[in-house]
Amino acid sequence: MLGEFEFIAARLKPLAAGTPGALDLEDDAALLDLPAGMSLVLTKDAMVAGVHFLHDDPPGEIAKKLLRVNLSDLAAMGAAPLGYLLALARAKETPESWLADFCRGLAEDQAEFGIGLLGGDTVSTPGPLTLSLTALGQVPQGQALRRRGARPGDDLFVSGTLGDAALGLLALQGKVDPGPEQRAFLIRRYRLPQPRLALGQTLRGLARAAIDVSDGLLADLGHILEVSGVGAELRADELPLSPAARHLSGARDAALAGGDDYELLFTAPPERRDQIAALASRLDLPLTRIGRLDAGSRLKVVDAAGQETAPARRGWQHF
Amino acid sequence: MLGEFEFIAARLKPLAAGTPGALDLEDDAALLDLPAGMSLVLTKDAMVAGVHFLHDDPPGEIAKKLLRVNLSDLAAMGAAPLGYLLALARAKETPESWLADFCRGLAEDQAEFGIGLLGGDTVSTPGPLTLSLTALGQVPQGQALRRRGARPGDDLFVSGTLGDAALGLLALQGKVDPGPEQRAFLIRRYRLPQPRLALGQTLRGLARAAIDVSDGLLADLGHILEVSGVGAELRADELPLSPAARHLSGARDAALAGGDDYELLFTAPPERRDQIAALASRLDLPLTRIGRLDAGSRLKVVDAAGQETAPARRGWQHF
Repeated sequence: MLGEFEFIAARLKPLAAGTPGALDLEDDAALLDLPAGMSLVLTKDAMVAGVHFLHDDPPGEIAKKLLRVNLSDLAAMGAAPLGYLLALARAKETPESWLADFCRGLAEDQAEFGIGLLGGDTVSTPGPLTLSLTALGQVPQGQALRRRGARPGDDLFVSGTLGDAALGLLALQGKVDPGPEQRAFLIRRYRLPQPRLALGQTLRGLARAAIDVSDGLLADLGHILEVSGVGAELRADELPLSPAARHLSGARDAALAGGDDYELLFTAPPERRDQIAALASRLDLPLTRIGRLDAGSRLKVVDAAGQETAPARRGWQHF
Repeated sequence: MLGEFEFIAARLKPLAAGTPGALDLEDDAALLDLPAGMSLVLTKDAMVAGVHFLHDDPPGEIAKKLLRVNLSDLAAMGAAPLGYLLALARAKETPESWLADFCRGLAEDQAEFGIGLLGGDTVSTPGPLTLSLTALGQVPQGQALRRRGARPGDDLFVSGTLGDAALGLLALQGKVDPGPEQRAFLIRRYRLPQPRLALGQTLRGLARAAIDVSDGLLADLGHILEVSGVGAELRADELPLSPAARHLSGARDAALAGGDDYELLFTAPPERRDQIAALASRLDLPLTRIGRLDAGSRLKVVDAAGQETAPARRGWQHF
């Protein structure tokens, strides 16, 4: 097994090479300058083997998911990514090849998203492999998207399709059987979310409030409603479902309460509908209107006839 | 047990109240503006129960140590602290009272160091409680202290006393018996390091290179030598030992190779000796000259007679 310093030299320094501010991991800390007029955006997510990913998930995809869930938080604020710090608590049984594949996944996504490693920490743990990543982004001052700011009368939009990731996890657990091709699609959606960075940045000045769908649509919409002090009517029949999800029983429940989709949920005044349709077309990404905010304080889920329905579960809590 | 959102509301939101940039933890990420002319400094350290602290260590002191080891990294760069993000992977057996005490410790140190919580993540783990903290600081552009920059002929200084923390850990493990009063002092040095923030900031423009002593004097001095491309002669008889450490056998080995002291090790040209003596007096903190850099590539440890000696161990690696 590589010692700590050898691991840093062999695996982590290459990830930091050329990252502005990483100082080649030579120092106690990273050192970064922001361009004038930009605010720093910071987010941190942790993942534990056996809790947030399965022990036999491909290590490169775990690396990418860890990075991407953080980039998704940046996207929800309308920020462009700058770099990241990584803390890795390595279990005794973690093989060297696992770590090599993990770092290869990071390298691939660094290239994909144009960012680099800034620093971090490596320790050992008697428990399961535990990862924590802090992502940094930047946004023009005063232009960050917030959960706060939604108003009664706003349209409610969501990007992409919902429920795929939750169904992908169920497929991995053998609890649904979507057929081989659809199965691969759903598992990919679970393992490899697409942070909606271009969308988030374009929504600055267009959306009134935004969040990424990580805990599930109902829970995350609930966050917007709570801090904005508004209610909402959500049209269950309008939820965008992928072709793979559509024919599965439970797809609508997964779309309402399943987490891990990392699509953006946002509100905008109705006069922006044309702009949003044009944006969807330009980004080649569905942006579906799924409801409307109101002056109440409740989240109502209604069916195609406008009748209120009670969803099976409302979201996901981490403990 | 409090659920995730209740825990955040009850324990973490009070720690973020009033922290600029924390947005009251309402959002997916924190949002921070740096004053013009300042660089951002970023560091991240992880701690695992049973590895980096003992299971029966007081939770408030674990919280403070986690925060302080990160603040010490900022000090080593000459930075002033701005705030921090926390990831907490909670074990099933972690009692509510443990978390309450942990957060109380954070609150006390937030007041002590004038910083606040910016954000983070809470998850559960089937393994031991695992913590990761990212600290942010700021330093005037171009003035950060680095490990790189030491030159042959520089004096080598260290703040405070060395070896106390390692001896405190040995005392906790029952491996040394320093007597009750000295024992309390050494354990306190192990559990509650003092990040040398005022010193670090004052050393900007005065020191040529700096690092904090976390892995042990020899290992950390080795880092300066390696990236600065210099050698050093270290006077073992000049190492500053506390009254509590001085009478214990093994004190000098602890000072050379024991970690966790979090003192600052720095180099400066000899013409700065008077300024450094004045600084020690002003900060009421010993700054002891313990050696000299040379044009070689080796780290030589010499005794009072100038004879080279071989230290018992050279440092600490985390895995």
